[in-house]
Amino acid sequence: MRLLGIDPGLQTTGFGVIDVDGSALTYVASGTIKTTHLDLGELPARLKVLFDGIREVTARYEPDAASVEIIFVNVNPQSTLLLGQARGACITALVSNNLPVSEYTALQMKKAIVGHGRADKSQVQEMVKRLLKLPVLPGKDAADALGMAITHAHVGHAMARLAAATPLARKTSGMYRDGRTH
Amino acid sequence: MRLLGIDPGLQTTGFGVIDVDGSALTYVASGTIKTTHLDLGELPARLKVLFDGIREVTARYEPDAASVEIIFVNVNPQSTLLLGQARGACITALVSNNLPVSEYTALQMKKAIVGHGRADKSQVQEMVKRLLKLPVLPGKDAADALGMAITHAHVGHAMARLAAATPLARKTSGMYRDGRTH
Repeated sequence: MRLLGIDPGLQTTGFGVIDVDGSALTYVASGTIKTTHLDLGELPARLKVLFDGIREVTARYEPDAASVEIIFVNVNPQSTLLLGQARGACITALVSNNLPVSEYTALQMKKAIVGHGRADKSQVQEMVKRLLKLPVLPGKDAADALGMAITHAHVGHAMARLAAATPLARKTSGMYRDGRTH
Repeated sequence: MRLLGIDPGLQTTGFGVIDVDGSALTYVASGTIKTTHLDLGELPARLKVLFDGIREVTARYEPDAASVEIIFVNVNPQSTLLLGQARGACITALVSNNLPVSEYTALQMKKAIVGHGRADKSQVQEMVKRLLKLPVLPGKDAADALGMAITHAHVGHAMARLAAATPLARKTSGMYRDGRTH
């Protein structure tokens, strides 16, 4: 299972790709997509750079699923609006490729990676380096993106264990089209 | 020249297509793309509906340019964030098709359509109906989208007249690759 994590940003969007085999994680690739060569006013052009960049990453690494950081309202509402549009472009690039997209907050990611939600960015970088046995510290945006991918791997692993341990929890009930219940 | 106007929204995105020949405007099509059949929580799926819907509209009507309403910070920051992501998906659908995208505020649109910025939605609907000689009132979202397309047509027309009237304004200065100036 190959997972793509995305840390969305209008100026810099981080991406990270990992392979997951049970609880074993293998680093595949990471990097950033930058729109800083464009004017701040050129929003449509910047969204195109993000869209094309993520489509290029998905075409090259062919992930099976993606996870994108959930963003929150910023103290600056205008920044919130810009970041929202950037995140919309990122998610659109993924779903337009029919990739399943999960969403996690930075808090959930920090808990999954560092063990508590108060971790700062350098602690995330350090733990991502250790978890993926990287020779050097990944950049901050790439580390957050790899963190998103690792978080999704942990959640998927935990859910698989939960499903195996409690088969009854998987029982579903509902109604067929003809009105019969099951 | 065929123009596509977009009134972005997470639940309902309006679109309107017009043909422009000098100052003559002809209605081509309008409608809405709805995501209300999906849960509010399914943001990626909703963005995909918007992306696919706009791509379908551009494939069917083949516009030469698009204009998208500029959104502002809402009293509810969470709504701002959701609307921002929807607008990001809409713009992405346009630029991924290499359509040039212009942006206008609702105020600019109301000034262009009704003549002043205090117009309410029903006045916009009424004027859009009159300007495009429609047999019935367009829906509110479609009217706003057609208004965006008409605004772009007016601005383009005004800029063409301005360029024709003041040819000196079109003079450019700069430098060639070899360092010569002009």
